[in-house]
Amino acid sequence: MTNYCFGSDNHSPIHPTILNYLQEVNTGSMKAYGYDPITVEAELEFKKAFGDKTEVFFVFNGTGANILAIRSFLQPFNAVICADTAHINCDECGAPEFINGVKLLYLPNENGKLTIENIETRLHDRGDEHHNDPALVSITQSTELGTVYTLEELKELTEFCHSRNLKVHMDGARIANGAVSLGCSLKEMTTDCGIDVLSFGGTKNGLMMAEAVVFLNTPAPKWIRHLRKQNMQLMSKMRYISAQFLPYFRDGIWKQNALHANNMATLLSDSLKAIGVEVTRPTQSNAVFCKIPKDLKAKILPHYFFYTWDEDEDEVRLMCSFVTTKQEIDGLIDFLR
Amino acid sequence: MTNYCFGSDNHSPIHPTILNYLQEVNTGSMKAYGYDPITVEAELEFKKAFGDKTEVFFVFNGTGANILAIRSFLQPFNAVICADTAHINCDECGAPEFINGVKLLYLPNENGKLTIENIETRLHDRGDEHHNDPALVSITQSTELGTVYTLEELKELTEFCHSRNLKVHMDGARIANGAVSLGCSLKEMTTDCGIDVLSFGGTKNGLMMAEAVVFLNTPAPKWIRHLRKQNMQLMSKMRYISAQFLPYFRDGIWKQNALHANNMATLLSDSLKAIGVEVTRPTQSNAVFCKIPKDLKAKILPHYFFYTWDEDEDEVRLMCSFVTTKQEIDGLIDFLR
Amino acid sequence: MTNYCFGSDNHSPIHPTILNYLQEVNTGSMKAYGYDPITVEAELEFKKAFGDKTEVFFVFNGTGANILAIRSFLQPFNAVICADTAHINCDECGAPEFINGVKLLYLPNENGKLTIENIETRLHDRGDEHHNDPALVSITQSTELGTVYTLEELKELTEFCHSRNLKVHMDGARIANGAVSLGCSLKEMTTDCGIDVLSFGGTKNGLMMAEAVVFLNTPAPKWIRHLRKQNMQLMSKMRYISAQFLPYFRDGIWKQNALHANNMATLLSDSLKAIGVEVTRPTQSNAVFCKIPKDLKAKILPHYFFYTWDEDEDEVRLMCSFVTTKQEIDGLIDFLR
Amino acid sequence: MTNYCFGSDNHSPIHPTILNYLQEVNTGSMKAYGYDPITVEAELEFKKAFGDKTEVFFVFNGTGANILAIRSFLQPFNAVICADTAHINCDECGAPEFINGVKLLYLPNENGKLTIENIETRLHDRGDEHHNDPALVSITQSTELGTVYTLEELKELTEFCHSRNLKVHMDGARIANGAVSLGCSLKEMTTDCGIDVLSFGGTKNGLMMAEAVVFLNTPAPKWIRHLRKQNMQLMSKMRYISAQFLPYFRDGIWKQNALHANNMATLLSDSLKAIGVEVTRPTQSNAVFCKIPKDLKAKILPHYFFYTWDEDEDEVRLMCSFVTTKQEIDGLIDFLR
Repeated sequence: MTNYCFGSDNHSPIHPTILNYLQEVNTGSMKAYGYDPITVEAELEFKKAFGDKTEVFFVFNGTGANILAIRSFLQPFNAVICADTAHINCDECGAPEFINGVKLLYLPNENGKLTIENIETRLHDRGDEHHNDPALVSITQSTELGTVYTLEELKELTEFCHSRNLKVHMDGARIANGAVSLGCSLKEMTTDCGIDVLSFGGTKNGLMMAEAVVFLNTPAPKWIRHLRKQNMQLMSKMRYISAQFLPYFRDGIWKQNALHANNMATLLSDSLKAIGVEVTRPTQSNAVFCKIPKDLKAKILPHYFFYTWDEDEDEVRLMCSFVTTKQEIDGLIDFLR
Repeated sequence: MTNYCFGSDNHSPIHPTILNYLQEVNTGSMKAYGYDPITVEAELEFKKAFGDKTEVFFVFNGTGANILAIRSFLQPFNAVICADTAHINCDECGAPEFINGVKLLYLPNENGKLTIENIETRLHDRGDEHHNDPALVSITQSTELGTVYTLEELKELTEFCHSRNLKVHMDGARIANGAVSLGCSLKEMTTDCGIDVLSFGGTKNGLMMAEAVVFLNTPAPKWIRHLRKQNMQLMSKMRYISAQFLPYFRDGIWKQNALHANNMATLLSDSLKAIGVEVTRPTQSNAVFCKIPKDLKAKILPHYFFYTWDEDEDEVRLMCSFVTTKQEIDGLIDFLR
Repeated sequence: MTNYCFGSDNHSPIHPTILNYLQEVNTGSMKAYGYDPITVEAELEFKKAFGDKTEVFFVFNGTGANILAIRSFLQPFNAVICADTAHINCDECGAPEFINGVKLLYLPNENGKLTIENIETRLHDRGDEHHNDPALVSITQSTELGTVYTLEELKELTEFCHSRNLKVHMDGARIANGAVSLGCSLKEMTTDCGIDVLSFGGTKNGLMMAEAVVFLNTPAPKWIRHLRKQNMQLMSKMRYISAQFLPYFRDGIWKQNALHANNMATLLSDSLKAIGVEVTRPTQSNAVFCKIPKDLKAKILPHYFFYTWDEDEDEVRLMCSFVTTKQEIDGLIDFLR
Repeated sequence: MTNYCFGSDNHSPIHPTILNYLQEVNTGSMKAYGYDPITVEAELEFKKAFGDKTEVFFVFNGTGANILAIRSFLQPFNAVICADTAHINCDECGAPEFINGVKLLYLPNENGKLTIENIETRLHDRGDEHHNDPALVSITQSTELGTVYTLEELKELTEFCHSRNLKVHMDGARIANGAVSLGCSLKEMTTDCGIDVLSFGGTKNGLMMAEAVVFLNTPAPKWIRHLRKQNMQLMSKMRYISAQFLPYFRDGIWKQNALHANNMATLLSDSLKAIGVEVTRPTQSNAVFCKIPKDLKAKILPHYFFYTWDEDEDEVRLMCSFVTTKQEIDGLIDFLR
């Protein structure tokens, strides 16, 4: 039977504490659409985690969070600057173009990280009516390639962007893995670094389905609730999204899960190197990229499923999650050996 | 403390059997995006319920289902004909216009139901490039006003529509309440009546959040999965949506919950009439509309929350759900007396 | 041979003075996109006609003007309130929904004119995230039914709208016919009445193709040029649009043409009444609506083309333009007699 | 006084024969929206020029033509593959993303031309619901960099694309310059090379404003007229667009104008080289790219206006048009010397 543990961190189940907590809130009638006491509690947890000015709006999935974040600040004549490897560019079936109407100015990059030099190449001729005006830079932390921006890099980048009248969005689908990698708090890596708006991801780190758009250093637009509703991201029985965040923050599940996933990735990366497999990207969070020849891959896939990253280069991606075990890593290594 | 039981059927919690079942599927890693065995099982349950040709695509919420159903058959130069009281017209913050780009031709109506005569008024001049071409008629069962189309009415309507090259969409946010009201099966009320595409709603009837676009008499478009993804309605950990439908169908929870809600509405309606309150619409499913003067309303609302339907007419809406109790009805009636 | 003179005022040719003037500006190279001296001159003519604060942006056609005007003030979660007979509702193939993403709240009306009472019916529950928030009222002057708002009516309407935080847009596809009907200046009927933004139409009144979005009492949005470009309404050789307005204003062609068209309509209307034909709408500008039975209509159409307005009611529309002659009216009346 | 002759070919006036011809058709009332005899004649001219299966739809400008061409074949979940230098990518303020909702997969290239190798890099993973499915390859002839695809290159490219289920669009904003450069007919360079849909440009080559979407090897979609209308590209007094094409084709103005422009560009290019100015791209049509240092540029611009192409590289673009004279070239060269 195929084991899907390395396929993606969203192949994982829900952390038991989270699902148990849904039982606790499953009592009686409550107002819908986020006007219930559970959601109010969850909003307070976000303020605790990210600072007092924080405003949070829950949505269904990561695409929903990214699209709403973009829509909060941009009009269709604007452009988003991002890495060409960004999830908003590669894996949302063009929702930014279709829903937001904006242009993505996607840039070649090294290991998923944008640099100031790179961004600068797209800041010519601003104000010309023939060109989308860049208004937002979107970065991913940890990146789609498993790397992590340092706090220093984040601060320099947001400072530069703000000086050029660009907001900064962080796609935090794996924000917990990023923070754990840096050994800092969520706030230190976001609010304190000048991030304007964050897509906060919980689904890949032990939640069922719980994402949020979080405004940190720039207030949410006045009509944010209308934008969310029109974007089809307003849940009626909201308490079942918001409740997931209560144990997630209060019991430190976010950190514990991410730490486990990152540690497993490090172990996997080291084990691969030890048997001579070429690891192609720095292993800084819960993703490991390495080279596996096609014939070997064909033999392993029925046992351990994973995605090919670059067909031509034989590069594959192995993700770890909060449920990845040492046994699974050993099992995979055995096959590779 | 305010009791929210009459506010809406989406103020209700989750049926315990459903939530318990999520525990059962919460084990191990599975492929994401609906390529897991739980989702395959749920798809089979829909085929059992609606017929062998059925194709089902799970989404997050009712707006998401309606928008995807429209997008499956229409291009932006098309129009949807619907009642002016329809949820797609009144309560989705214009998502049909924003996401689908279509025009809604919304028609005045009696008690939420469209008639053939009414539809015919919007079928002039088809083919003229200055006008959106009507391509879909959308009806709601049970309607937003608590009424229910008979099987005869449904058949005549779909027959007429198909003869005019119009597809028929059923917004089934409260489909179970409709079927229970008619005493028929889900299939008899949809597939057998010629409905082309259905928004299947479970959230208002005891599920957490589980809706689906169901293709019955017309195949899903080839690119339906792309449409769902681009519409931000693709859940990664899909099993937690699809699993809800397993006990829902297998244990007959859909019928039992809807029956209870409808019965409570009948009891409430009868009780209101008995004390001289004017019930303004036929009580055929789980909604009761009646007149409550403003000053009396102000006194009750802190105890029992409900929504005003027509400010000028003092008309209010009282919804019943699978958890509404006789005690709550008695409590409300006591206040009104 | 069919005579098309009553079909529409856009069936007419170009006033000779206008076309001759294009010859005059057809000399040498000039900057494109409106940065040429001819366009600057034309902009000044608009300031003379509508007041010093006027900002004008030329576009290709009436739909282009209306869509850009709406986009200047509204986001997709907003709604436009308009008459159900409005051109933006009936004759733009849903461009407001497709391009702007907004909802049109279209209202039944008498003779094409909105009233305050009517508008008030759509101002409930503002701020609720489930509903598009009305932000603009769009009226047409002269209306699609040939009627004309009085200055008093316009002032009351804009005052009411502004008190409710609604901007007012005037679709002036036939603005000249309206002003001539009222015997006032263009400014008196627009800027002085509180109109915020105007779609200025010249094509139906003797120009080749020359429309403009004109900001009167509210400044154009900062990014208006980007909006126009992205809306595909930016002409490269702009001088050939803008030049048309120079003789149009300077030689009083706008007034002379509209006066002729209105006078011909009055003559036609009176002639119809004189021979017992029922004129169904007040003839206040250049459109005449009357009843012509189907069999008679079939006999006339090969000779004089016109459009049916209401098939069921045998109501037809006869438009007059700056080239309509007394002979043509006599010819048509002869057939009808 | 500044001379704008090198700024762009759309800085040019209208060829006198064209404007005179507008006088000829300026007589009497005709049906609007393209149902007039002049437009029928023009459609026949396109069939003569491009082949019997040709279908042509007139629009206002080049952006309007490109957007309608894309909309004819693509849905928003599709992608367009194009050069990163393409006009649809650089100079339409994101209209393809905003209006069509599609993603542009823009590719680095040499001198504005796409290659099969380059296109192949974007054809991985087709059918995956997370990615826009490429459905159209858009090329420009002559390109934005003044180069011209050979007939051989065009045939190989369309053959490859068709084998991969990709339609081919040609942005022919400067189609005449391309054909003249190759010494072939319009049909040989388009229909005979397998092009599916063409944006035919006349404005830059002596027309006032006259562009068209031309379907060559694939029929126009059934609803093309609705698409054009909803895209705000339907002119009411259509004869004034379509008439321009009659002398344009019949009198060979298209060829004569393009030949002059290309010859002037060759002369300019040779003259630049002769005085030691570095010409940076092959001069194959009517555009010349060369290096002019910033300080020299600052001195020339008040006399001869032109656009900077690459600020960092001191690269500028000098366009020639049908009115560019040898005197103007000599004048510019004098400054540069």
